[in-house]
Amino acid sequence: MDSKLRIFIPIYPGVTHLDFTGPHQFFSRVPQIDVVVASIGGEPVDAQGLTFSNLDDLTDIAACDVLCVPGGLGCLDAAKDIRFIHAIRHLAGTAKFVTSVCTGSLILGAAGLLHGRRAACHWAWRDMLPLFGAIPDPARVVRDDEIITGGGVTAGIDFALTVIAELTDDETAQRAQLILEYAPAPPFDAGRPETAPAAIHDHVVADMAELQASRYRQAQYLAERYATRR
Amino acid sequence: MDSKLRIFIPIYPGVTHLDFTGPHQFFSRVPQIDVVVASIGGEPVDAQGLTFSNLDDLTDIAACDVLCVPGGLGCLDAAKDIRFIHAIRHLAGTAKFVTSVCTGSLILGAAGLLHGRRAACHWAWRDMLPLFGAIPDPARVVRDDEIITGGGVTAGIDFALTVIAELTDDETAQRAQLILEYAPAPPFDAGRPETAPAAIHDHVVADMAELQASRYRQAQYLAERYATRR
Repeated sequence: MDSKLRIFIPIYPGVTHLDFTGPHQFFSRVPQIDVVVASIGGEPVDAQGLTFSNLDDLTDIAACDVLCVPGGLGCLDAAKDIRFIHAIRHLAGTAKFVTSVCTGSLILGAAGLLHGRRAACHWAWRDMLPLFGAIPDPARVVRDDEIITGGGVTAGIDFALTVIAELTDDETAQRAQLILEYAPAPPFDAGRPETAPAAIHDHVVADMAELQASRYRQAQYLAERYATRR
Repeated sequence: MDSKLRIFIPIYPGVTHLDFTGPHQFFSRVPQIDVVVASIGGEPVDAQGLTFSNLDDLTDIAACDVLCVPGGLGCLDAAKDIRFIHAIRHLAGTAKFVTSVCTGSLILGAAGLLHGRRAACHWAWRDMLPLFGAIPDPARVVRDDEIITGGGVTAGIDFALTVIAELTDDETAQRAQLILEYAPAPPFDAGRPETAPAAIHDHVVADMAELQASRYRQAQYLAERYATRR
């Protein structure tokens, strides 16, 4: 009998691959953990030029210990598919921890799992959480009881160490950190809106403005459709 | 005519996926950069439970601006394949920068590209670099003229920002850093042998001892076969 802890990662076209490959690499170094990655129908998933195949079928998973939903520009399109939302709701009901990285929290929100709960999200999309009744939190890793959410993209690694420590112990997380030599030394300090040079921040915000407006409307539509705000 | 900078990433079974998905995610957010990922024959590649498909054929690539070789437990097995080594040597000859992440530097070494050169490597495998005539450097990102190498696994992200800044400018690298919210906040400080608690370090080193010994012999064999030490 397999007594490993099962972490389940649903992916979809347009997922930001580092949202889940970061955590996946850390989780997969822990002997007590099994990681399962799945998509609708087990279909291959394209993400920024990488194709992930040999996936499990998302609609065919019975249960998991941890549900871990990654983000990406495709997150709201994924949430439009009722099969995807049904699978997320079902698995969340079986999991000890319901988690996300980056804009994966918008999927949790659309599924109605964050009402009244604090959650992290990528800085540029965090303002959309209240559309789903969630309370945005700017921390890199946010825990609200059984909900653990990470901030944008690379926050997934800090998130993964937090989840590993929670599921096992600090020592197991530290061994994974040493094996994966996670002693970050960014050559610049531009990783948050608060620390990035103003010109960098303004450039990125201007680039994203149009996309943000259209995704905001998309999120409003989903909140209405799935009645997740009430 | 495509005037984008072409970064080429060769992968192989047993590659540590975060060695290249980290840099790939950063590179792919830079408009001036095209990233190509390839394997021998364009075959799908398995890595820690993820399968990467839809790959280019490594033996069919004419040239690139940056060669970026990731590491992993399969690195020396990959280097045993003369087609793989031929492709690495050929592409290195066309590239402006020859680079690696983690134990990818052992592949560069086996290919004879690091003789007398300083290079980074994963901390646990760094001592094998001299077998290929290279000079191990414990820094997270090491530059020796056109050779840029990153340390273990997650160092690939710091490495990627360094390479992006070199290929374009600091501002472009900073924009990628902000978009991917790279403001790391590890919950533990166990990412380097020097900072990890002694018990953590000893446990990991003991776990790896047997593997290290067999891989050392494998590297000796490759150094002999490809005459890369002379």
